[in-house]
Amino acid sequence: MENLAEQVELLKTQMEALTNKTPEEKLSMIVFSGDLDKLLAAFVVATGAVAMGMDVVMFFTFWGISALRDKAKDAGGKDMMGKMFGAMLPKGTGGVKLSKMNMGGMGTAMMKMLMKKKNVASLEEFLKMAEELGVRIFVCEMSMDLMGFKREEMIDYQGLEFCGVAKFLEEARNSKVQLFI
Amino acid sequence: MENLAEQVELLKTQMEALTNKTPEEKLSMIVFSGDLDKLLAAFVVATGAVAMGMDVVMFFTFWGISALRDKAKDAGGKDMMGKMFGAMLPKGTGGVKLSKMNMGGMGTAMMKMLMKKKNVASLEEFLKMAEELGVRIFVCEMSMDLMGFKREEMIDYQGLEFCGVAKFLEEARNSKVQLFI
Amino acid sequence: MENLAEQVELLKTQMEALTNKTPEEKLSMIVFSGDLDKLLAAFVVATGAVAMGMDVVMFFTFWGISALRDKAKDAGGKDMMGKMFGAMLPKGTGGVKLSKMNMGGMGTAMMKMLMKKKNVASLEEFLKMAEELGVRIFVCEMSMDLMGFKREEMIDYQGLEFCGVAKFLEEARNSKVQLFI
Repeated sequence: MENLAEQVELLKTQMEALTNKTPEEKLSMIVFSGDLDKLLAAFVVATGAVAMGMDVVMFFTFWGISALRDKAKDAGGKDMMGKMFGAMLPKGTGGVKLSKMNMGGMGTAMMKMLMKKKNVASLEEFLKMAEELGVRIFVCEMSMDLMGFKREEMIDYQGLEFCGVAKFLEEARNSKVQLFI
Repeated sequence: MENLAEQVELLKTQMEALTNKTPEEKLSMIVFSGDLDKLLAAFVVATGAVAMGMDVVMFFTFWGISALRDKAKDAGGKDMMGKMFGAMLPKGTGGVKLSKMNMGGMGTAMMKMLMKKKNVASLEEFLKMAEELGVRIFVCEMSMDLMGFKREEMIDYQGLEFCGVAKFLEEARNSKVQLFI
Repeated sequence: MENLAEQVELLKTQMEALTNKTPEEKLSMIVFSGDLDKLLAAFVVATGAVAMGMDVVMFFTFWGISALRDKAKDAGGKDMMGKMFGAMLPKGTGGVKLSKMNMGGMGTAMMKMLMKKKNVASLEEFLKMAEELGVRIFVCEMSMDLMGFKREEMIDYQGLEFCGVAKFLEEARNSKVQLFI
């Protein structure tokens, strides 16, 4: 009897440990790409996952960050490199291009027309939807620093956080699904 | 004693809940790319996973879908945009190109020669192998709609399904491994 | 009482099975890309994960392998195709380029300058850091064979292994996080 009680105690400890190790209903995504098609895929997956009851975190890094710049905002205090990157990279969702068949912008324009015609939300609309659905957006500070992006030129987005890879990995390792896009 | 019985009952409930939350021996893949090299990687991983006893689902979306078009099939009822996409994108595994060093087709031709010489299966053969091994293929309906692809121009493949991202995520969140290629 | 003992026995068996099925604190990555920006992302994630106590495996395949070639080493016995690939692909971390905005090398040079200025480690330094931190590197044998790369032209790296996709999947399916970069 005593022995049985001990065994049950041990099982309870193991159960707790295992519960802590078991991933949650969460999807963690690294959004590295700044291409229209890949960003579209990222948002379709993200909003779809929320619709299924999952918690979603998107960690924007490198080229992906361009899509989060606010067209209407400007940031001062940039050095020459920062100014160059700022000028060459797309500013916000409106400026991103297809990864293939861009054809000097024609392919991208065609895709945008198609998206409208087929009732697929635009990136702009997807961002709004994501915000309403509570998708969390993390922005990689190291990438921002590299490209000379400033916090004050990013879009307004409920709960947007500037952080490092550690904070993302903390989420990812407790997530059922992880993707690098 | 009664107390012990209650504790065991609780443990049983927790065990069942945890078992349901624990991912299965399954690999879920989003095949976004339509490049020869990435498709090759996708099929090597997919068939390798089956060989290790895993269940495999490949969700083809965007450029990836081109590789599933049947060269010998045509679909009517396309609008102008659909016809343009249809003409510009590769039709089936035979038409896909390297993501790098395509060099006007020379690099791709070289890679195909090398694959033959080194006894690496062609994409065509990998598709057949995947079918025989029971790899499930999902085709993204939203992407098909965007690009004007029709169901009747897709390859014959045992169990191929047309579906949305929700159906894929249902598999992905119960999978041990997920990849975006 | 007997019944209770049986139930506890059953729970113990289930607990053991579930523990074996639960993924470990491990990150498994397929490094397919040979681009400076993506390799940088891969190493930032890899070293960050180790810093958080995770075990990390990087499986280099296809273009990614170029970055592991040692600039100072040469390999004989290559056929014509192998010589061509060898000459056209970057040799080591020093030769890799940005996936976007390379602009004939100017963009890549700019990025490297920025990395230095902002105190972001170079790929060379990241490789060293990864080695010191115990990040395991697997090199895909099939890809090496395809591209005509030889073992003797790869960098010296503690514990580097040449293997197939099965060995990688063995790690991936017991990992909390998997990424395809």
